[in-house]
Amino acid sequence: MTARTPPGTTGTGPGAAVPAVTLDDVRDAAGRLAGIAHRTPVLRSRTLDALVGAEVHLKCENFQRIGAFKFRGAYNALSQLSPEQLARGVVAHSSGNHAQAVALAARELGSHAVIVMPEDAPRSKRDATAGYGAEIVTYDRYTGDRAALSRRLADERGLALIPPYDHPHVIAGQGTAALELIEETGPLDALLAPVGGGGLMAGSATAATALVPGIRMIGVEPEAGDDTLRSLEAGHPVTIPVPRTIADGQAVESPGELTFAINRRLLDRIVLVTDDDIRAAMKLAFERLKIVTEPSGASALAALLARRVELPPVPGRPGRPPRPPRIGVIISGGNIGLDRFIELLSG
Amino acid sequence: MTARTPPGTTGTGPGAAVPAVTLDDVRDAAGRLAGIAHRTPVLRSRTLDALVGAEVHLKCENFQRIGAFKFRGAYNALSQLSPEQLARGVVAHSSGNHAQAVALAARELGSHAVIVMPEDAPRSKRDATAGYGAEIVTYDRYTGDRAALSRRLADERGLALIPPYDHPHVIAGQGTAALELIEETGPLDALLAPVGGGGLMAGSATAATALVPGIRMIGVEPEAGDDTLRSLEAGHPVTIPVPRTIADGQAVESPGELTFAINRRLLDRIVLVTDDDIRAAMKLAFERLKIVTEPSGASALAALLARRVELPPVPGRPGRPPRPPRIGVIISGGNIGLDRFIELLSG
Repeated sequence: MTARTPPGTTGTGPGAAVPAVTLDDVRDAAGRLAGIAHRTPVLRSRTLDALVGAEVHLKCENFQRIGAFKFRGAYNALSQLSPEQLARGVVAHSSGNHAQAVALAARELGSHAVIVMPEDAPRSKRDATAGYGAEIVTYDRYTGDRAALSRRLADERGLALIPPYDHPHVIAGQGTAALELIEETGPLDALLAPVGGGGLMAGSATAATALVPGIRMIGVEPEAGDDTLRSLEAGHPVTIPVPRTIADGQAVESPGELTFAINRRLLDRIVLVTDDDIRAAMKLAFERLKIVTEPSGASALAALLARRVELPPVPGRPGRPPRPPRIGVIISGGNIGLDRFIELLSG
Repeated sequence: MTARTPPGTTGTGPGAAVPAVTLDDVRDAAGRLAGIAHRTPVLRSRTLDALVGAEVHLKCENFQRIGAFKFRGAYNALSQLSPEQLARGVVAHSSGNHAQAVALAARELGSHAVIVMPEDAPRSKRDATAGYGAEIVTYDRYTGDRAALSRRLADERGLALIPPYDHPHVIAGQGTAALELIEETGPLDALLAPVGGGGLMAGSATAATALVPGIRMIGVEPEAGDDTLRSLEAGHPVTIPVPRTIADGQAVESPGELTFAINRRLLDRIVLVTDDDIRAAMKLAFERLKIVTEPSGASALAALLARRVELPPVPGRPGRPPRPPRIGVIISGGNIGLDRFIELLSG
């Protein structure tokens, strides 16, 4: 294994074989995460059920360590590095939840994380990442190339590059949220999750479709960040302009190669939500569910509330009335400062 | 049983025998609430543990039905009324969580609730209570006597008056939160809960001291609403001026007679928190725990964070180092509108 290709990556360049991710991989990841990641609560709300005409189960990854599902994938990837590699360290570029996830996973495993962030990243994000013991390397957002800088650091210092989504170990780790959800709820008719780079969705779909044949996997993107929807329509990954949306965790220009290959095979569909849909969902989550969500974290809930997806009642057994659909929703994160929350939701 | 004395009240007037509330009463209440009330999650936060030097277990009653622990006591009281009494209905006066609790408990049991509220109660509280099917009767806050109005309604219409805290069935119901907490965590060294009328504290202390001999029960009051502290110092219930505090659920002028008798016997001490302590706890709960708390709901957490209570490490076994204290904290409710939350925490 070299620093550029963490273990398990069999090559995802053009023409390379796409490595499969299976339910067993997700189960193995769950074993590695046991006692390390939180088994997050699944919340119910009768108010929400009545509003949307469904039985809704909310998997609350805002209560995950570092405040988002990202810890699952990062830890699963790092825990499969060799002791020698862990001793050399890891590198990731992110100003968001992946930064904190890699920093914390490295600390848990006695490794050293280098996180590449733009110079103007919010102080709170820098502090949180540094607080987990990571070394922060900054670049100029307008003139620097963070990918090139990360590769250079990887080469020069022998660090393993931990990608935010396009890696089978990361995807398998993210899939453990859906695995836990379905273990707790039993079979669901549909599962909604946000789609940014597609790692959470690809992992969730891998687990859920294997556990519940026929389950509808519905990805949710912000209207301005519809790269996966466009890629599905085109039949190959396409690149869109930098999305302008409050859902910063989903402001991605193109899906990953591996995540796209998996999602193309397993998704029922992608639906889009507006920033106003997301704001309304954040407000409902606050007032009725009593939970804090970041915009990306609320987007799957937003799709349900704004009726961007309609799921019909499920036929009952002969002579029995139809029942409301049983729907899982992944609340993917809650990392938002109070000031930013107020700015987004005031007035 | 008459409308004025719900079942179980053996008389709490001066000189009357104070009815005992026991762990068995709390266990019986838990049986009645099974499948009706939520078994709320117990959250942990390593950040919080590190901040306060303890192992903290947060019992999150903000996720309870109606958004606060009050549903437990109201349902336990109503479910012990006779079928005839349930058919006649119940009455309560409250503009807060007790109103919604009685309204929902009545709906669940097929009864009819009349809730007496001031004319100028917030629209959101009226709507929420009416939304559970209750009949709202208003009075003028400045000229009306809500207690007299409630009694008149009880007499004229044969309604059972459901007190907000000073009743053994209400106290036993509230105690189920501590029962669930300790069932989940095992023995705790201390348990912190907010004290308003004292029902939650009396129920919690009844359950916790029976389950964990030697546990320290610590009540938390807002500085401006220190009626229970003063009453404990005086040795009898005293009345203070109407408290001015953001902790509206604890803005009580005097403890209940029964709750005071229980708390006097079982509490280790009362500590006070300022409104700023509460604001800081609400902010930490939002940003780090990702949960929404109303001011009263955050006051026990505030006492811990502001170091109004210092709990030393617990001696280990011979030859072993001391360990951090294991502390339970009841987050008692999360009913706060987004506008009010922003108003309290902006700037």
